Amino acid sequence: MSDRIDVAILGATGSVGQRFVQLLAGHPWFRIAELVGSERSAGKPYWEACDWRVSSAPPDEVRGLKVKHYEEPLHSTVVFSALPGGLAGPIEEGLAAEGKRVFTNARDHRMDPDVPLMIPEVNPDHAAAIERQRRERGWRDGFIVANPNCSTIHLVLALKPIQDAFGIEQGIVTTLQAASGAGYPGVPSLDLIDNVIPYIGGEEEKIESESRKILGRWEDGRFLDAPITLSAHCNRVPVRDGHTETVSLKLAQPASPDEVARVLAEFRARPQELGLPTAPARPVVVLDQLDRPQPVLDRDVERGMASVVGRVRPCPVFDVRFVVLGHNTIRGAAGASVLNAELLLREGWLD
Amino acid sequence: MSDRIDVAILGATGSVGQRFVQLLAGHPWFRIAELVGSERSAGKPYWEACDWRVSSAPPDEVRGLKVKHYEEPLHSTVVFSALPGGLAGPIEEGLAAEGKRVFTNARDHRMDPDVPLMIPEVNPDHAAAIERQRRERGWRDGFIVANPNCSTIHLVLALKPIQDAFGIEQGIVTTLQAASGAGYPGVPSLDLIDNVIPYIGGEEEKIESESRKILGRWEDGRFLDAPITLSAHCNRVPVRDGHTETVSLKLAQPASPDEVARVLAEFRARPQELGLPTAPARPVVVLDQLDRPQPVLDRDVERGMASVVGRVRPCPVFDVRFVVLGHNTIRGAAGASVLNAELLLREGWLD
Amino acid sequence: MSDRIDVAILGATGSVGQRFVQLLAGHPWFRIAELVGSERSAGKPYWEACDWRVSSAPPDEVRGLKVKHYEEPLHSTVVFSALPGGLAGPIEEGLAAEGKRVFTNARDHRMDPDVPLMIPEVNPDHAAAIERQRRERGWRDGFIVANPNCSTIHLVLALKPIQDAFGIEQGIVTTLQAASGAGYPGVPSLDLIDNVIPYIGGEEEKIESESRKILGRWEDGRFLDAPITLSAHCNRVPVRDGHTETVSLKLAQPASPDEVARVLAEFRARPQELGLPTAPARPVVVLDQLDRPQPVLDRDVERGMASVVGRVRPCPVFDVRFVVLGHNTIRGAAGASVLNAELLLREGWLD
Amino acid sequence: MSDRIDVAILGATGSVGQRFVQLLAGHPWFRIAELVGSERSAGKPYWEACDWRVSSAPPDEVRGLKVKHYEEPLHSTVVFSALPGGLAGPIEEGLAAEGKRVFTNARDHRMDPDVPLMIPEVNPDHAAAIERQRRERGWRDGFIVANPNCSTIHLVLALKPIQDAFGIEQGIVTTLQAASGAGYPGVPSLDLIDNVIPYIGGEEEKIESESRKILGRWEDGRFLDAPITLSAHCNRVPVRDGHTETVSLKLAQPASPDEVARVLAEFRARPQELGLPTAPARPVVVLDQLDRPQPVLDRDVERGMASVVGRVRPCPVFDVRFVVLGHNTIRGAAGASVLNAELLLREGWLD
Repeated sequence: MSDRIDVAILGATGSVGQRFVQLLAGHPWFRIAELVGSERSAGKPYWEACDWRVSSAPPDEVRGLKVKHYEEPLHSTVVFSALPGGLAGPIEEGLAAEGKRVFTNARDHRMDPDVPLMIPEVNPDHAAAIERQRRERGWRDGFIVANPNCSTIHLVLALKPIQDAFGIEQGIVTTLQAASGAGYPGVPSLDLIDNVIPYIGGEEEKIESESRKILGRWEDGRFLDAPITLSAHCNRVPVRDGHTETVSLKLAQPASPDEVARVLAEFRARPQELGLPTAPARPVVVLDQLDRPQPVLDRDVERGMASVVGRVRPCPVFDVRFVVLGHNTIRGAAGASVLNAELLLREGWLD
Repeated sequence: MSDRIDVAILGATGSVGQRFVQLLAGHPWFRIAELVGSERSAGKPYWEACDWRVSSAPPDEVRGLKVKHYEEPLHSTVVFSALPGGLAGPIEEGLAAEGKRVFTNARDHRMDPDVPLMIPEVNPDHAAAIERQRRERGWRDGFIVANPNCSTIHLVLALKPIQDAFGIEQGIVTTLQAASGAGYPGVPSLDLIDNVIPYIGGEEEKIESESRKILGRWEDGRFLDAPITLSAHCNRVPVRDGHTETVSLKLAQPASPDEVARVLAEFRARPQELGLPTAPARPVVVLDQLDRPQPVLDRDVERGMASVVGRVRPCPVFDVRFVVLGHNTIRGAAGASVLNAELLLREGWLD
Repeated sequence: MSDRIDVAILGATGSVGQRFVQLLAGHPWFRIAELVGSERSAGKPYWEACDWRVSSAPPDEVRGLKVKHYEEPLHSTVVFSALPGGLAGPIEEGLAAEGKRVFTNARDHRMDPDVPLMIPEVNPDHAAAIERQRRERGWRDGFIVANPNCSTIHLVLALKPIQDAFGIEQGIVTTLQAASGAGYPGVPSLDLIDNVIPYIGGEEEKIESESRKILGRWEDGRFLDAPITLSAHCNRVPVRDGHTETVSLKLAQPASPDEVARVLAEFRARPQELGLPTAPARPVVVLDQLDRPQPVLDRDVERGMASVVGRVRPCPVFDVRFVVLGHNTIRGAAGASVLNAELLLREGWLD
Repeated sequence: MSDRIDVAILGATGSVGQRFVQLLAGHPWFRIAELVGSERSAGKPYWEACDWRVSSAPPDEVRGLKVKHYEEPLHSTVVFSALPGGLAGPIEEGLAAEGKRVFTNARDHRMDPDVPLMIPEVNPDHAAAIERQRRERGWRDGFIVANPNCSTIHLVLALKPIQDAFGIEQGIVTTLQAASGAGYPGVPSLDLIDNVIPYIGGEEEKIESESRKILGRWEDGRFLDAPITLSAHCNRVPVRDGHTETVSLKLAQPASPDEVARVLAEFRARPQELGLPTAPARPVVVLDQLDRPQPVLDRDVERGMASVVGRVRPCPVFDVRFVVLGHNTIRGAAGASVLNAELLLREGWLD
C-alpha cells in the first residue's frame, strides 16, 4: 500500500467528513494524508478537534493527525470536500485552479454547466465535462466533480434501470429523511420526538432538478436534461440514518411490476464491471418482503452503498410504484464521492 | 342533562374505545350508560378492566361502571362501536336488527352498498342510505352508519372543498401514520425506534376505495363513486398520534395554490351550521408557516377535530400539492363516530 | 379582571418563557403586560418573534404584543424571569434595584445567602430572607425570589413530607430527564434517537446543593442547610417533557413503604390552604400501579403542577425507594415561579 | 474447519436466538448444525421460519437449515438455549440428562445450588459445580451452565475488579434498559415513544440476587454469596440495544476515582489469557469523555462483548460512582453463553 495516493478531506470534523474518514481509512488506493477544518479545529489532533459520532472512536491511523486550516497549502492532489454549501464553492474552485482533483459533496457546483454531477453507475460519461471545465476555466490538471444530494442519489439509482428499459415520463416522490442528513447538531430533538417535519429547505428543488441533469445526456459539450418531470415532497422523520422514499412513476412503455423489479435487481454498471473497491456488488437490491425496506434493517446492505427497493407494485394513477431506501451519509454522501474518485482513477483522469 | 340519551360503547377498553369514553364523558346530548368488552374485561369495573392510556386516569363518571359482555343485552338505543374489524360485522348487524343505532369505526360495513360511509362535513346526504338498509335488511329502527378509516377522513376533508370548487381527477398520497393507529399493544417498539415501516396492511386499498365512495353521490337509491383515481403509499412512523399525508392533485379546472388554500380555509359545512357539540369551528385549518403542520404541535387544533393543511404550493407534475395532518384517534376515529351521531340526532334519525 | 396586576416576562420567546405565557394568559390575578426578549426579537409582535412550540399557536391575548428589549424600561412591578443562566444575574439585580419583584427561574441567584429558593409547599417561611436582601442590598420595594432547578423541585416535593414525618439522612437519586429541560434548540436529535446521554452539565451539583438549602431552615437571618447528603446521577432521555427520578432514601426513623406512601399522598401545605390559583389540589400524587408514573401518561396530572410518585417499596440498602415524576417546564420551571408569586401576593409581599 | 463441534440452538428464531446464530455463524470451534423452534417454525427453512431482525438477512450458512421441533432428537452434544424462562427449565434438564452440554441464557436454573452462573472473566472456577450436578442429578456427560441476566452481566463485570482491589459493601444501581431486552414483539411502541417505563418485572430481584452468587465463592461443594448488598431500580427507555446503568458503591477500603478507573481499565482475566475467540481484548473499557458511554456510540465496542464505563467520580453518599453500558443481547445474552462454552471447551469440560 506504499503507493496509495495521498488525499485531503475538507470539513473533516463534521458528519459527512467523519464518514469520509471512515470510508478512506484503510482504503487500498487512497491514503488520508490531510484533514482540513475550520479555525476551531485547526492545529489540534483529529481525535480532539472532532466530536466523533459515527462509531465509538476514530480509526487509529487518523487519531493523531493534526487538523489543517483551510488557508494552509495542501500537498495532496486528490481532495474530498464535505464542506457546507455556500462555503464550499470558492474554496473548491481555488483548489481546482491549483491543480487539485476535487470530489465534492457540496451543493454549490452541482448544477454548473461544466461540472459532472456524477453517479458512477448512472452517468460515468459525464466525466467528459471535465474537459470543458479545464478549457473554459483555465485549469490544467484540477477539476471539480460533484455527487448529488443524498435523496437524489438513491432515487436516481432506482430510476436509471427503469429509464433505460421502459422510459420514464413523470414521477411523484415523497421522502422520509433521516436526521443525519442535516448534520450535527442539525435537527433539535424537540422537533423529532413524537414528531415529523414536513419540510426540508431546498431539498425538493434539488431532487427535481438534479435528477434531470444526472439522467440526461452529455452531448456536443453540454448537458441535456432528461425529459422527466418530478415532484418531490420532503419530510424529516425520527430516524438516525437512511432515507426512505415512496415513488410513483409514469412510464413511456408499459411494464409489469415484475419486469420493473427484474431490471432493478439485475442492474449492474461500470463500477461493478471494474470491481471498484467501494462499489456495491448490486447497486440496487430488491427485497420481496411486504414490509421492507426499513432503515434500521436495510440501510447497511452492501456496506451502505446500495439502494434498497421493495414493494414494487402497480400504481392506480401512474404505472408502477415502489419504495426505495438508502444510507444517506454513506452512498448518499461520502461513499458517493469516494466511488466517483475510484472511477476516475481507473479511467485515467487522475494521472 | 337529565334527558341525555343513554349510549353503549363496544370495545370500550381498547385505544379507540378509550377515546370514545373521553369524548362522551360529559357530552351534552349523550350519557355513557354501558361499556362493553370481551370475556377478559366483562364483570370488572372499567378502571380495572381497562389499561387506560389516553391520559393519567379515566373520567370519574365511568371509573366504576361495570363492563358488560358482548352477549349481554343492552338497554341503550345508541351504540358506538370500537370493535376490531372482523369481529365487528356480525355483532353490529345483530344490534341493528334489535333496533340499535350503530355508529361504527370498524371497517366491516364501510363498503356495503347500503351503509353510509359518512363525514358530516362531506356527505351528510348519504344518510338516506339508511332507508335502503331498513327496507332490504328488514330492520325497523336500527341502522349502521360507518365512519371512514383514519387516513381517509383527513384526506377527504381536505379534498372535499377542492373537489367542489375545482374538481379533482387524480391524486397521489403518501401517509406518515402514527403508532396509535394500530391500537395497543400494536406496533412493537423495535419496529419504531430509529425506523419507519413502509407498509400498513390493507390501508392503501382503504384510502383509495373509501375516498371514492365518500366523495361520490347517493342517487336513485345507490352510491355512485366519484370519478377520482387515487394512489396511496402508507408508512408507519415513530409518532404517537397524528397522521401526516403529502398530497399531489390533478384538478379538473386550473387553480392557483392561493385559491386552493382559500377554499380550504373558508370551508364550512352542515356540522358548523348546526353547531354540533363536537364539530370543529373550522373543519380545515390552513397554516402559513413553511414547516407546518407537525403532529406534536398541530394534532390537537380544534380539540383534534380539524384537518390541518399546510405547504399549499404548485405541483410540477400535477396542479397543486400540500400536506394534511389530523388526529387519527379523535377526528380519525372516535370523534368521527360521535359527530355522525350528533348529526343524525339533529336531523331526526334517532327519534 | 380589570384590577389584575401587570407583569412582565423576561426571555419570553424561549421554552420556559412560552410556558410563562401559557400559564399567565387568563390568570385571575396577573395580566401579561410586557414581553421582553433579545435584540433578535425586540420590536416584533410576539407571534412573529417567537417560534411558539408548546401548542399550535400562542394565546390570542399576547399574539400581537410587541416584544420589548431588555434595556427598555418596564412599567410592570412584577417580573417573571426565564432568562438563561449567566445573562440573568445582573439584569435581575438591576430590576430589583428599580423596585421590581422578580420571580426567577434562572440559576444565578439561587444559592445567594439572602435569596429565598422557594417551593411554596416546602419553605414558604424562607420569604423572610427578602428583608435581608432589602436591607443589605439597599433595595426598597424590589426583591428576587428564585425557584429551584426542575429536577430539584420534584425531588424536594417528594422529600419534604418524608423529612417531616421520619427524617432523611441520605439519598441516592438517578434522573431520566426530558429534552425540553435543555430548551430549544437544545439537545440535537442525533443525541436522542436510539440513545441516552448519561451527563447533564452542572445538574448533579444543583440537585445536591439546592435540596439542602430548600429543606433547611431560615434562622437568625441566615439559611441553615438541612443535614441531608444526596448523590445525583443525571441522564438525558428521549422524552419531550417530564423528568423521572429513581430515589433511595436512608431515614432517621424506621417507616414502612405504606407509611411513606401515606404521608406523601396526604401532604397538603400553604398553597392548598390558601387555594392559590395555580396550586395543585394534591402537591404529591401517589399511584398504585406497578409501572407508574410514566412521563407521557402522568406529567399532566394536576395540570402539570404535581409531583407524581409510584413504586414506594423497601430498599435493600437504605430504607425506602420510589420513583417520582414531574413536568419539568410547568411545575419544574414557569409554574414554580408563578406559584411563588401567588403566594407572596397573598402574603402581602407585593403590596 | 472440518472438526468444528456441531451445536444446536434452542429458541433459534427469537431475538436472542438470532444473536446466537449471528455469533456462531463462521465460529472457528463450533458449527451450527441444528436450529430448534416451536411448532410454528418447525419444518420450515430458517429464513422462512424466522422474522430475522438483527441485520438485513440471516447468514447464508443457516438460511436454508430446516428448523427442528423441541421434541425431535438432537445429534449435537453442545446446546445453546435462548428459550423463554419457564419453558426452558424442563427442556434443558431433559437434554442434560441425555448427555448434552447446555449453555443457557434462560433464568430457570440460574439460582440452582449446583448450576454455575458464570461470567468467564469473573467466576470461571464456578464450573466446578458441574461435578455436583452430575453426581446429584445422575447426569454422566451432560450439564447446565447458565449466564446471568443482561443487566447483571455488565454490572458484575464492572464490580469484579473493584471488589478484588478494594472490596464492595453496598451498591445502588439504576438501569436504563433497551427495548431489545424484552424480545420481539416485546414492548409496544406506544410505551416508548416520548416515554420511559419505570418498571421491568422481576429484573430488580435478578440483579440483586444474581450478583451476589456470581461474585461469591464456590467452596466445599457449595456457593457462598458475596457479602454485598445491592439495590436496583430498573427502567425501560427508548433505545434499541444497550443497557446503561448508574452505579454508586460503598467500598471496604478507600480508593480514589482514578484508582478505581485504573483497576477497571487494566482488568484482564481467563478469557483474555486463553485468547478465546469471542473474548474482548478488554472486558471493561473506560472512557474519559464527560458524556460517555452512550448506547448508540459505545454498545458495539469490542464487538459488543465489553462493558464500557465512564464518569468514574466520587460519590457524596458512598465512595465512588460511575456509569456502565453494555450490549444487552451480545455480551448480555448470546455472547455470554458462547464465551462460557469457549471457556469450558478450552478447559476440557466438553471432552
